[in-house]
Amino acid sequence: MLFNPRAIQHCRACGTAVEYRVPADDNRERAVCPACATVHYQNPINVVGTLPVWEDRVLLCKRAIEPRYGLWTLPAGFLELGETTEQGALRETDEEAGARIDLQGLYTVINVTRVGQVHLFYRARLLDPNFLPGAESLEARLFSEGEIPWDLLAFRTVRETLRCFFDDRRRERFELHCLDVG
Amino acid sequence: MLFNPRAIQHCRACGTAVEYRVPADDNRERAVCPACATVHYQNPINVVGTLPVWEDRVLLCKRAIEPRYGLWTLPAGFLELGETTEQGALRETDEEAGARIDLQGLYTVINVTRVGQVHLFYRARLLDPNFLPGAESLEARLFSEGEIPWDLLAFRTVRETLRCFFDDRRRERFELHCLDVG
Ligand SMILES: [Zn+2]
Ligand SMILES: [Zn+2]
Repeated sequence: MLFNPRAIQHCRACGTAVEYRVPADDNRERAVCPACATVHYQNPINVVGTLPVWEDRVLLCKRAIEPRYGLWTLPAGFLELGETTEQGALRETDEEAGARIDLQGLYTVINVTRVGQVHLFYRARLLDPNFLPGAESLEARLFSEGEIPWDLLAFRTVRETLRCFFDDRRRERFELHCLDVG
Repeated sequence: MLFNPRAIQHCRACGTAVEYRVPADDNRERAVCPACATVHYQNPINVVGTLPVWEDRVLLCKRAIEPRYGLWTLPAGFLELGETTEQGALRETDEEAGARIDLQGLYTVINVTRVGQVHLFYRARLLDPNFLPGAESLEARLFSEGEIPWDLLAFRTVRETLRCFFDDRRRERFELHCLDVG
């Protein structure tokens, strides 16, 4: 799912068909309304999630929705207006896994330029090992490192975040990781 | 400038007037097109910038544009599609200050929920102390801690990032800071 740089065809303010051109005082092509002059910007959006841990195991959810139906993911989803990145990460963990957690700090910041997204994952401590997966998940369960279904992970950012976690755990030192996956 | 949760009045795909309602399988009100069923999402956007340092001084730019014309800021602006957060931070530093820098890592991640933004600042090392401010800046210059115009800073996230920097420098330990300024 690449981002579409010309997804906007009509003005959001008045409905007139837009033109793509570089506005004065700008250096990029934007959707500009020839009727009311509204300039429409498209920007990368944030996906926020958590890496919830119980003893030596991590929580993954099996996706019940497209894209990547049936594959495993960390709880994550789009940041919404009005919430902080931490609040969004907690909300997604509740919605997708019904899991109760304490956040332990921002852990990975991963640019996914191909789809116009920035993924932010927080390390988290599970308060208990009981889950109640929501409508977006078929299942939520704990995996030890040896049990991780590496070939059945839904997203590259999930793979990278898990890889960082197990590497850091071996070194007994967790630190922020900033990555680009293209 | 609060975000407007109902900024979308017409469908971007076909121009029909949208209706605000909660789509099936969703739990938030969205702008939905009654003609073509396009659902329009609005999400927080990222502002990326740098805190460039030369010896004991930091670089600030005097804004030549609204909002906050004439006030001082760290180089920063909206992340664009197709670039990473690091590339965006470098681009803004070049556009606003004409400054050559090496990035030194993500330093602050600040939620500004009131305006639907997440601000990410990188620490940076200036490669030389010569600047060429672009059209968005009246001036670019270096300030020691005692010279910072605290009452003439353009944004709270700039103030917080500078405060973290001078505190960390005194403690001789720089670490990631995640904050919410409401
Ligand atoms: Zn218009
Ligand atoms: Zn439509």
